Amino acid sequence: MDPTAIAILGGTGDQGLGLALRFAKAGRPVVIGSRKLERAQAAADEVRAAVPGAGVEGLDNADAVGKAPIVILSVPFEHTAGTVKAVRERLTPEHVVVSMGVPLATAIGDGAVRTVGVWQGSCAELVASLLPEGVPVVSAFQNVSAHRLRELAHPVECDVVVSGPPAPRKVVLALCELVPGLRGVDGGPLANARYVEGVTALLIGLNVRYKVPEGVGVRFTGLPD
Amino acid sequence: MDPTAIAILGGTGDQGLGLALRFAKAGRPVVIGSRKLERAQAAADEVRAAVPGAGVEGLDNADAVGKAPIVILSVPFEHTAGTVKAVRERLTPEHVVVSMGVPLATAIGDGAVRTVGVWQGSCAELVASLLPEGVPVVSAFQNVSAHRLRELAHPVECDVVVSGPPAPRKVVLALCELVPGLRGVDGGPLANARYVEGVTALLIGLNVRYKVPEGVGVRFTGLPD
Repeated sequence: MDPTAIAILGGTGDQGLGLALRFAKAGRPVVIGSRKLERAQAAADEVRAAVPGAGVEGLDNADAVGKAPIVILSVPFEHTAGTVKAVRERLTPEHVVVSMGVPLATAIGDGAVRTVGVWQGSCAELVASLLPEGVPVVSAFQNVSAHRLRELAHPVECDVVVSGPPAPRKVVLALCELVPGLRGVDGGPLANARYVEGVTALLIGLNVRYKVPEGVGVRFTGLPD
Repeated sequence: MDPTAIAILGGTGDQGLGLALRFAKAGRPVVIGSRKLERAQAAADEVRAAVPGAGVEGLDNADAVGKAPIVILSVPFEHTAGTVKAVRERLTPEHVVVSMGVPLATAIGDGAVRTVGVWQGSCAELVASLLPEGVPVVSAFQNVSAHRLRELAHPVECDVVVSGPPAPRKVVLALCELVPGLRGVDGGPLANARYVEGVTALLIGLNVRYKVPEGVGVRFTGLPD
């Protein structure tokens, strides 16, 4: 396993593919995971076309997990539990699992400007509850616009609140710095993910009301440099 | 009733007094309400000392409501229902009630970095549920630092998400523009207050982790000018 590799499960979706492009552009090996191998391979081709020389491959989700110590879950909320259950036997305490999902009410056929309640408190804590003991989960990237991630010529201009256990939290804070315009912000314990996930629904409403298809982002003011 | 007056119930507290100072400085008549008349009057004296010529008076909460069409609730969450019940008979559909409370877990003796669940969905919706039919409620100002409000020489540097019915929402969006550095952002329907209130708990955690006693704020990126 390449210790610098980053796996993105659901990396064929808009936001996952956006992160794949950005991490590949930063020179990191990227493994795109999907339930369907062909879709993963097609997404990997897309990254290679946009980022010449990118170290990227497409695999099915379970194989992708075996190739990278950092595993980002970028699947719609309704596929989160299923995806985690399909790969969890391959996850170890040496992995860092990153939850970027949001329990948008689209999962039940309602709108993306609302959320559904999650018994565990948040999507990130749902993920944590399904993993073998000792596998760390960190919450991040929920509020980063897919559209802006994919515009490689422009910085993204968004803060990323990173929540989870201290050591893996630092790993993910460092990941944020790979993407121009992203800033990782120390979001404390994983349970704070509930607040960060709620912001996503708010931002989606702002995108609609202010007609910003590129996506509104968030910055915190007053933080030390 | 002066149509430009702003009443702030709980205006003797840090954040309410901060808003009173800012609105007085912008030339608006301000009525500070408190459960105790003497405390309201002392706070009014404090505003007059900081803002020479300020049009400010201190009254008990129920009398304050009779003096202004805009009524801002700036009381700790655990006093919200009691305060609303004490004044609701004097509130009319011509009022705009502004909820700036957050259901911080301090209400039950736990910490300010966490919230408690509110049956109605948010503090703002709790307030709405307690008011006579037709009295509009708007949610705003939750994430504005009291410390920064009180530093009159400096802009506040924070966006204010304003949620509620369209017409009163516009009234409160205009209020935001009275304070240098605040920007009102159209937050859609009142139910979105739950997401905005959650951000407060997140910001309080950031203040602690990053040692920013002045208070971290929030800005949205990508909004049209």
